[in-house]
Amino acid sequence: MKNISDYLWVVISAMIVFLMQPGFMALETGLTRAKNSINVAIKNMSDFILSVAVFWFIGFGLMFGTSFHGIVGSSDFFVNFEQNDWMAAFFLFQAVFAGTAATIDSGAIAERAKFSTYLLMSFITSAFIYPIFGHWAWGGYFYANNAGWLQQLGFLDFAGSTVVHSIGAWVGLSGIIIIGPRLGRFSKDGKANKIRGHNLVFAYFGVFILFFAWFGFNAGSTLTATTKIADIIANTMISAAFGGITGLFISWKFSKNQLPEPESIINGILGGLVGITAGCYYVSAVGAMIIGVVSGLIVYFGALFLEKLKLDDVVGAIPVHGFAGVWGTIATGIFIKENFLLEFGITRSHQIMVQLLGATTAFVWAFGVSFVLMKVINKFVPMRVSSSHEEIGLNIAEHGASTSIFELSNSVRNIIEDRNFKNAEKIEVEFGTEIGELTNYFNSMVNDLKEKEAEVEEALESLHHMAVTDGLTQILNRKKITEILGNEINIAIDYEKKLSILLFDIDFFKKVNDQFGHLAGDRVLVDLSKNVSSTLRKTDYFGRYGGEEFLVIMPKTDLEMAYFFANRIRAKIETMRWAFSDDLTVTVSGGVVENSGEDINKMIHRADELLYYAKENGRNQIAK
Amino acid sequence: MKNISDYLWVVISAMIVFLMQPGFMALETGLTRAKNSINVAIKNMSDFILSVAVFWFIGFGLMFGTSFHGIVGSSDFFVNFEQNDWMAAFFLFQAVFAGTAATIDSGAIAERAKFSTYLLMSFITSAFIYPIFGHWAWGGYFYANNAGWLQQLGFLDFAGSTVVHSIGAWVGLSGIIIIGPRLGRFSKDGKANKIRGHNLVFAYFGVFILFFAWFGFNAGSTLTATTKIADIIANTMISAAFGGITGLFISWKFSKNQLPEPESIINGILGGLVGITAGCYYVSAVGAMIIGVVSGLIVYFGALFLEKLKLDDVVGAIPVHGFAGVWGTIATGIFIKENFLLEFGITRSHQIMVQLLGATTAFVWAFGVSFVLMKVINKFVPMRVSSSHEEIGLNIAEHGASTSIFELSNSVRNIIEDRNFKNAEKIEVEFGTEIGELTNYFNSMVNDLKEKEAEVEEALESLHHMAVTDGLTQILNRKKITEILGNEINIAIDYEKKLSILLFDIDFFKKVNDQFGHLAGDRVLVDLSKNVSSTLRKTDYFGRYGGEEFLVIMPKTDLEMAYFFANRIRAKIETMRWAFSDDLTVTVSGGVVENSGEDINKMIHRADELLYYAKENGRNQIAK
Amino acid sequence: MKNISDYLWVVISAMIVFLMQPGFMALETGLTRAKNSINVAIKNMSDFILSVAVFWFIGFGLMFGTSFHGIVGSSDFFVNFEQNDWMAAFFLFQAVFAGTAATIDSGAIAERAKFSTYLLMSFITSAFIYPIFGHWAWGGYFYANNAGWLQQLGFLDFAGSTVVHSIGAWVGLSGIIIIGPRLGRFSKDGKANKIRGHNLVFAYFGVFILFFAWFGFNAGSTLTATTKIADIIANTMISAAFGGITGLFISWKFSKNQLPEPESIINGILGGLVGITAGCYYVSAVGAMIIGVVSGLIVYFGALFLEKLKLDDVVGAIPVHGFAGVWGTIATGIFIKENFLLEFGITRSHQIMVQLLGATTAFVWAFGVSFVLMKVINKFVPMRVSSSHEEIGLNIAEHGASTSIFELSNSVRNIIEDRNFKNAEKIEVEFGTEIGELTNYFNSMVNDLKEKEAEVEEALESLHHMAVTDGLTQILNRKKITEILGNEINIAIDYEKKLSILLFDIDFFKKVNDQFGHLAGDRVLVDLSKNVSSTLRKTDYFGRYGGEEFLVIMPKTDLEMAYFFANRIRAKIETMRWAFSDDLTVTVSGGVVENSGEDINKMIHRADELLYYAKENGRNQIAK
Repeated sequence: MKNISDYLWVVISAMIVFLMQPGFMALETGLTRAKNSINVAIKNMSDFILSVAVFWFIGFGLMFGTSFHGIVGSSDFFVNFEQNDWMAAFFLFQAVFAGTAATIDSGAIAERAKFSTYLLMSFITSAFIYPIFGHWAWGGYFYANNAGWLQQLGFLDFAGSTVVHSIGAWVGLSGIIIIGPRLGRFSKDGKANKIRGHNLVFAYFGVFILFFAWFGFNAGSTLTATTKIADIIANTMISAAFGGITGLFISWKFSKNQLPEPESIINGILGGLVGITAGCYYVSAVGAMIIGVVSGLIVYFGALFLEKLKLDDVVGAIPVHGFAGVWGTIATGIFIKENFLLEFGITRSHQIMVQLLGATTAFVWAFGVSFVLMKVINKFVPMRVSSSHEEIGLNIAEHGASTSIFELSNSVRNIIEDRNFKNAEKIEVEFGTEIGELTNYFNSMVNDLKEKEAEVEEALESLHHMAVTDGLTQILNRKKITEILGNEINIAIDYEKKLSILLFDIDFFKKVNDQFGHLAGDRVLVDLSKNVSSTLRKTDYFGRYGGEEFLVIMPKTDLEMAYFFANRIRAKIETMRWAFSDDLTVTVSGGVVENSGEDINKMIHRADELLYYAKENGRNQIAK
Repeated sequence: MKNISDYLWVVISAMIVFLMQPGFMALETGLTRAKNSINVAIKNMSDFILSVAVFWFIGFGLMFGTSFHGIVGSSDFFVNFEQNDWMAAFFLFQAVFAGTAATIDSGAIAERAKFSTYLLMSFITSAFIYPIFGHWAWGGYFYANNAGWLQQLGFLDFAGSTVVHSIGAWVGLSGIIIIGPRLGRFSKDGKANKIRGHNLVFAYFGVFILFFAWFGFNAGSTLTATTKIADIIANTMISAAFGGITGLFISWKFSKNQLPEPESIINGILGGLVGITAGCYYVSAVGAMIIGVVSGLIVYFGALFLEKLKLDDVVGAIPVHGFAGVWGTIATGIFIKENFLLEFGITRSHQIMVQLLGATTAFVWAFGVSFVLMKVINKFVPMRVSSSHEEIGLNIAEHGASTSIFELSNSVRNIIEDRNFKNAEKIEVEFGTEIGELTNYFNSMVNDLKEKEAEVEEALESLHHMAVTDGLTQILNRKKITEILGNEINIAIDYEKKLSILLFDIDFFKKVNDQFGHLAGDRVLVDLSKNVSSTLRKTDYFGRYGGEEFLVIMPKTDLEMAYFFANRIRAKIETMRWAFSDDLTVTVSGGVVENSGEDINKMIHRADELLYYAKENGRNQIAK
Repeated sequence: MKNISDYLWVVISAMIVFLMQPGFMALETGLTRAKNSINVAIKNMSDFILSVAVFWFIGFGLMFGTSFHGIVGSSDFFVNFEQNDWMAAFFLFQAVFAGTAATIDSGAIAERAKFSTYLLMSFITSAFIYPIFGHWAWGGYFYANNAGWLQQLGFLDFAGSTVVHSIGAWVGLSGIIIIGPRLGRFSKDGKANKIRGHNLVFAYFGVFILFFAWFGFNAGSTLTATTKIADIIANTMISAAFGGITGLFISWKFSKNQLPEPESIINGILGGLVGITAGCYYVSAVGAMIIGVVSGLIVYFGALFLEKLKLDDVVGAIPVHGFAGVWGTIATGIFIKENFLLEFGITRSHQIMVQLLGATTAFVWAFGVSFVLMKVINKFVPMRVSSSHEEIGLNIAEHGASTSIFELSNSVRNIIEDRNFKNAEKIEVEFGTEIGELTNYFNSMVNDLKEKEAEVEEALESLHHMAVTDGLTQILNRKKITEILGNEINIAIDYEKKLSILLFDIDFFKKVNDQFGHLAGDRVLVDLSKNVSSTLRKTDYFGRYGGEEFLVIMPKTDLEMAYFFANRIRAKIETMRWAFSDDLTVTVSGGVVENSGEDINKMIHRADELLYYAKENGRNQIAK
């Protein structure tokens, strides 16, 4: 018969074990990237509330109900604990254990497991995988004479190194094998890339909370108020401390940069905690110390081993809960105090064998069942998110949620992808949030860069214009028109195209200057240039060749055609009216030549000669 | 008579209930924006320490002191618990309850409520609003035969769905009505804009802590160590789990983007916790499940309802603590187990009526009193911060404190507001902090942009200069001076202003070149240009019109005045001394004309004619 | 004989005290900068696991083992608690106390203490400093008749204001004196610069956890389940509340910006907690209130006092744990209730004297021993990190770890330090992390700026080129070559160097134009320029001086040498072959002069005259 102290102890322990949930949440969110952190938190919360419901409906009955040949419980589904206060206390304690088992795999498969199928696996773990194995090891804890088959063989797992932790880890192992490593975790050349979590401080905080919750986990497993709870907690603390110290110094010695690495210390502590869980009641403080040290080693090298196998366990759940769990289970046989062996009437070696059997059974059961189930599920609904979802992160992809820092980086990624800041307009400013401010900033910065870019381009264009343009007439200058002609001759020769030019000169230009002044002469040059420009075809080039001398380049044009156009130009000029004098008529004389494979020099020279010929022949005419 | 187990249970429960404070803090800081997060934390801390003091001074006595006709307690102010250890334990438990009631409204009115008046309202809530209603429902919990009037009627609220949670929520409701929604929460067109919190992971962590603290809250309310505490906690856990599951699936189904939303899950859980608080002792596990599911629904749709009413409840405190609190109070009547009804000698429907009465009374009292008081306070001291304070955030505005990310965004906002990076100097670098580094970066970036800007401007200026300046003399070139003259003529004609020009030419310039060399000629042009430039008025323009020909434009100047200035220029040149020859005298001849409505062409032509006339007339003179 | 309630109470209290560790961790990481936050977390974790091990090995025995004349314990090393369950419980409680003492100094010396030597000091504190003083005050707590000398004198320190908190603080004080203030904490002019922590919200959360843990700390110190635990916790809560309220209002009144500062409130609360720790069992609630208020004042002004002394205590550990600890110890004598004085048979003034003695002894012992030891250690291994490590932060420097925000700021610092974005390539992109995204962004931004910079530079260069170059020949234009000659003349005169020039002119250039056309003339100018350019020495300058006139400047060259080079040029030109005419020979005539101290004008003039002389003398020759 339980007395009030037992109730207090078990209820308080259950509450404390509940804190494993925020502990795992802080640890796992801290060790993952910000873009997935909210998803991790939601998974931790959701798997707990789901597993409470499921364990109440099915799990508890399968685990502690009246045993069917030591294989499975068969009563107490939809637990009714109102008539039996002790059952309520016992249920509470077991429900938070089930919740722990259900959440362990979440860390291993974080950052790419789909929320919906993750919930399904949580359901299966809480409803079947955990409770059925739990029945084998702990089936007789509530009803007398109800032991499961492992328990009957004398399997010892005081608080669940195997029952809770290994089971959770093996489900996680199936998961990481089936859904594969995160994008970028392993390079194509097989190199492992470390993907660091976004908030190690919070991860450390989580470990402290887990450390605390573990006291309740281990000592509460007495399920009764006894003076032994102090020893249990002291053992737990010592194993954890030495696990952590081992992790600290081993990474200081062996890690790549020979520094005490943050992850090694906390995983050492967690390994020490998992390791002592099975034997916390049975071993001495010195035994606890050794278990802790070895756990620290196993976790450190176990993680390296997984990495070698290209298995991607985000938080190190498998080395911590799986490998250290197996070690702790076996170590219970190794370090169990004599008086217990006497009490149980068993030899140490026999005990070790039973422990090994239990640990192996757990692996075969949990890994086997979960692997097969996930394979099947994965066939119908992929358990992994799409790679685009993985890239943008599960916070956004699965919950429409985000952290400030993620949203910022996402905005800038958008900018980058379109380059040249073309989509600056697209970034929406969320009113009043920090990210809104930052977005504003980027929009502004981008805008500034755009303006600057425009100014520079304008300047360059201006420069270019100046370099190739005649200052007065704004048509091509001598340097440019000559350069173009050189190119066009090359093209004409290379591609066997026609090419003609017209060189023309204003007749009696000196007289215009003398009679109407400098400005009038300029005006003639400017207006004539404009007029001719508007007469030309798009493919023609027009430049000022000298004082009052102009050159027109006519690509893909033979002599006759060029002559026709040249005359049109001449005629057009002849009919121009001049603002400064009503009766002035300006005429030009010119020479047209077609390129005959000669070089620029000779071609111009020929045109020049024809021009002189036209002049001498009476002016206002084109010679060819 | 209480025994030691009772002490242990109540004291431990009280400690655990204390954790509601960090739980609320994490939840509320996580759901608000970074710029207000520290303010939220300070409010949570301050209202607790204040309410402890106030509850000790006044509140406890009003709530549990000897009853004045069931209306108010009237003894035990400034509680003296040293002579009575049980009173100490009872006080502890009640003080953390009062602290909880006082902090609930903080989440609703976060991000715009002023710190000073917030403290005042906390004081009033802890000193009067909560204890007086508390007396009505729970007055007889310490002294026998001391029941308040609601308690006498048989009102059941085991751990405070109404007494603690609704009371807190209704005070919050007054608050959000009086101080109004946050800037930007509702658009002018009435659209609601979601303002997301800055750290959902921390909010989730806070919910786990609240979940844990609630176990103590509900089970500790037995105020005695009893085997029933296990049932109570189990009911609490089940209701919370189903509240959360409901929130999860309902948002997955009904939310805009059909995703399981982070806020829905935690508010579902909190709704389930509030809902079960009144009946946790009275209902069965199945009753707890139903209460949880309905709470989840109420919270989800209640939040939408508030949004419809344009009420801005930052963390959803009113749906969670108010609406679910009312539901939980009524549900206690609906789901109370038969044996209790028999024990209390009351029918179910009667019980439900009493529950309704209690819930209604709480609303009328807490909302009514707080609304009136806040209206009055608000008249004398505005309860809302200024909108500029709201914009920069309460961390800075009310505490001179900041988070790194906020300070960053604030710095860049300053940059943006002054545009063109003019106030880059103003950003102070805080030594050695991350924000200092980032600020450094921005200063540097901004500086770089400024330099680039300067270079570009210099380049553009240089370009412009080259385009309008004569390369040798550095005065305006022909193109520019002509362009200016055109403009000035237009202005003169349009505005009927005078306009004169002087065109002048160096006499015998060829001789200078021949006699003293090219360089001497250039020197004459350069020095003469400088000399003339210094002679001109600010409004005049001066350009090189041709080889040794210059043009001076004199706006708003009639012929006589222009003639006067022209002669001054001529005289000045005549007296110039030349470095390369001691006895050389350079003279100029020029023509001055006033515009008579003619165009630029004719005007220059006239000046040119006068220039020639001057030359022919003996040189070194100005003709007009 | 202890009963089960005692076990429950002490074990549960020990667990709760354990939470001081995450409490301190959150507080200290929050109050330090992000770049050191992980290091702080690791230190907090490491010192705890180390102190558990050390306290188990040595500390416990020195503190509680059989006393050697009241000076030191001498049994129970490597505590064996398996045969004695009570010893296990007692050990647990004491181990978490030792862990607390060991961690207090970490906050004071944060952000610059080296990890390795910090661990060493933690070891020494847990192994010797804390346990030996502990023996003096508390030595008789486990074995009867085993009291230390202070305990024998009647020294009262119920839960360790002095034993735990002051001891920790004085070790910290030695530390901050020996390792000195953080870089930038005090300006050279002696001004104190506030270095704000990166996450005040988390610091607040930590204070809530500490507040909670303190309930276990103080009330658990009964070491037995008694009804007094409620009074103790109530006193603790009241003192803390009033400490906090004092801190709140005093900073509102006295702080620079007259705002309720975040750090003042929490340090007030912590001061109130430390202050009441010694007397929580002995004083009344009113005494607790006064102790709290005074603690709040002491902490506030104590921090200002330390700042005056240029001592840099990062989190305010010394005012909180040291000053308030001394005050609390003395206050126990002042406020102890009469009945206790009667019971102990001591007068109040005598008690106060004993308290003072105890507090003083603690200072002398802990400060003295730690100061000497650290001085020695510091000689062999510097206890402070290098200033470069301090600048990049201990996360990276000591653990290769980082936070996202730090890594960002570090990247940009690298950019800044090399200026002009030269090392943009160096920033490695970490795949898939947020910082990776941001780094990408910066790389892209920087790249953009580089491109823009290049464009601007190109534009400027282009401009410059245009301004100094002759458009046709691409050699220096008249303006530039004249400017250079002016400079060179000045240099020649100032430094008494030789300087010669060659002015030359193409013979019969007009004929080339007339005979072969414009283009041929241009070609002559261009080709000749190229040819001459390739003939010149690196130090010579070559420009087009007029139409067909060229100037060569030959610095550090006397007349003969110049004449030699000039003839080489002339000869070279004479032998040039021309594309447009097989039989054309172009010749030049020139004049060479050496500067004789004359100005540019006269020098050119002389060269010009020689040039004319050469022409008249038959052309194709150089005159000197």
